[in-house]
Amino acid sequence: MKLGTVRLDGAERVAVAVEDERAALLDPGLTMSGLIADWAAAGPAVARSAGQAATVRVSDLEWLPPVPRPGKVICIALNNSANADRIMSGPGHPAAFTKPASSLLGHGRPIRLKKEYGRVHPEPELAVVIGAGGSDVSRDAALGHVFGYTIINDLTSPTMRAEDTFHYRAIHPGPDGSGGIEYVDTWVSYPARYKGTDGFGPIGPWIATADSVPDPHALTVSCVHQGRLVTSDSTANLMHKVADVISFMSSYLTLEPGDIIAMGTALKPSAAGGSAIQNVNLVALGGPIEVTISGIGTLSNPVELL
Amino acid sequence: MKLGTVRLDGAERVAVAVEDERAALLDPGLTMSGLIADWAAAGPAVARSAGQAATVRVSDLEWLPPVPRPGKVICIALNNSANADRIMSGPGHPAAFTKPASSLLGHGRPIRLKKEYGRVHPEPELAVVIGAGGSDVSRDAALGHVFGYTIINDLTSPTMRAEDTFHYRAIHPGPDGSGGIEYVDTWVSYPARYKGTDGFGPIGPWIATADSVPDPHALTVSCVHQGRLVTSDSTANLMHKVADVISFMSSYLTLEPGDIIAMGTALKPSAAGGSAIQNVNLVALGGPIEVTISGIGTLSNPVELL
Repeated sequence: MKLGTVRLDGAERVAVAVEDERAALLDPGLTMSGLIADWAAAGPAVARSAGQAATVRVSDLEWLPPVPRPGKVICIALNNSANADRIMSGPGHPAAFTKPASSLLGHGRPIRLKKEYGRVHPEPELAVVIGAGGSDVSRDAALGHVFGYTIINDLTSPTMRAEDTFHYRAIHPGPDGSGGIEYVDTWVSYPARYKGTDGFGPIGPWIATADSVPDPHALTVSCVHQGRLVTSDSTANLMHKVADVISFMSSYLTLEPGDIIAMGTALKPSAAGGSAIQNVNLVALGGPIEVTISGIGTLSNPVELL
Repeated sequence: MKLGTVRLDGAERVAVAVEDERAALLDPGLTMSGLIADWAAAGPAVARSAGQAATVRVSDLEWLPPVPRPGKVICIALNNSANADRIMSGPGHPAAFTKPASSLLGHGRPIRLKKEYGRVHPEPELAVVIGAGGSDVSRDAALGHVFGYTIINDLTSPTMRAEDTFHYRAIHPGPDGSGGIEYVDTWVSYPARYKGTDGFGPIGPWIATADSVPDPHALTVSCVHQGRLVTSDSTANLMHKVADVISFMSSYLTLEPGDIIAMGTALKPSAAGGSAIQNVNLVALGGPIEVTISGIGTLSNPVELL
């Protein structure tokens, strides 16, 4: 089953994909968060309602993020096998930052970019939607915590990343443990702006429920900019897999129902004249920018230059 | 006025400080988010109710974060004048990361630490609670968006910071603009774990409303570990001021009612045998750890080693 969230007459409604290009809207009052919290009971009823409801055209809908206000959006960094030979040093485990809910944007909504953002490029990614929350989740139990999968375009400004990087002498405890200190030459970069600016998280339109995605590591991911196929990759190329990421992250950050985990950028240029996504500067070139993942759908957004 | 959020008989209640060590609890059903959204109308009624209600001892209450589920927690990095001579390069504007709501912890609740976290030290900070949301807020209008001020202990693991730092060759557009790429030697650090782990955000107990804090840059900040005064600083030493931070950040991330902005660490060692907060490794030493800001209150948390 595929589920999304739309706005109709000012109210939030859950949409269910019923056939190509058409969706059924569930009763007002039902929310994605409510369904996720109680899916075992709600799932069969949702399937029945969707089969009986009148349908609307998907293209007529105003889309919100499928989980409109997730508690957190964890984004895994540098997690594509194409990154491996560019990493001189880094951890062997998943490393992550968070994006605020205020940066998320529904399918079809304009990405509004200011010149001050510098360069802004797309990052097409598979995203996991957490169903049952938990901490210290074992690798074996991890996929049982997945409600479904969606698409996120993890927009990034390398200009703001460079601006918000410090080279400084960090204070560390002294080597003799006597309460003194020493200075350690350190680089730190802070992602609130370069990853969390308004509109930097287009997401959706659909969540494909876990039962409809037999293998999350056998999905094609493509990115199309202004009709040109830029990226053509596969979730097989994610270094840390969904189960590993859920298990590892949940031993530090308790996962809650509706949390999103973006699995890392698919960045392999397409064979047919694709290029690095870093060359797709949306501030200079505008949109639309589109991400498709097999079995989940297509996330497309126009760009407005302010 | 000072307001906080507590849990009583399983339900969330707003507490109002009525005198030293005593609080009035508002009617069930009122929440901090609801009050913030409608403070102009709700404020006078809250003052009246608090004056008439039976009071309870503050020490008997189970404290939640004062805004239990903020949409985002923006934390300003390296914003104390004592940092200035340690910064070899960095931006002239505020730089920030975000902490997830799941990392927040109420006053008095145990900070539960695992050995795998490595070193974990406290960072005592003034935090702004946003009242009216907005984007592109001017510097002159900025303080009008402040609902009040609270205390946050921005716990940090420098061990996880070092682990989650990559030295890598970032892909950038080629210099000739022809669609080619070049590699740029880059350091990036990812804060989801080292700043966002469960319990890394003790906050509260009180929000002092904006009208009760005439100058947010004339407050003393102290940090006490196991009875020893470690830090004694002042919010006068914040380089980027509250109005500047609100104005700057809101031009990138839309601020929403209840959002929290942590203003940066107060780190001046106390004259009376204080030491660097980086030497207060809570994983090795345990708690309690306490932060006091004049006019706002004291945030104290025990430590549980797992």
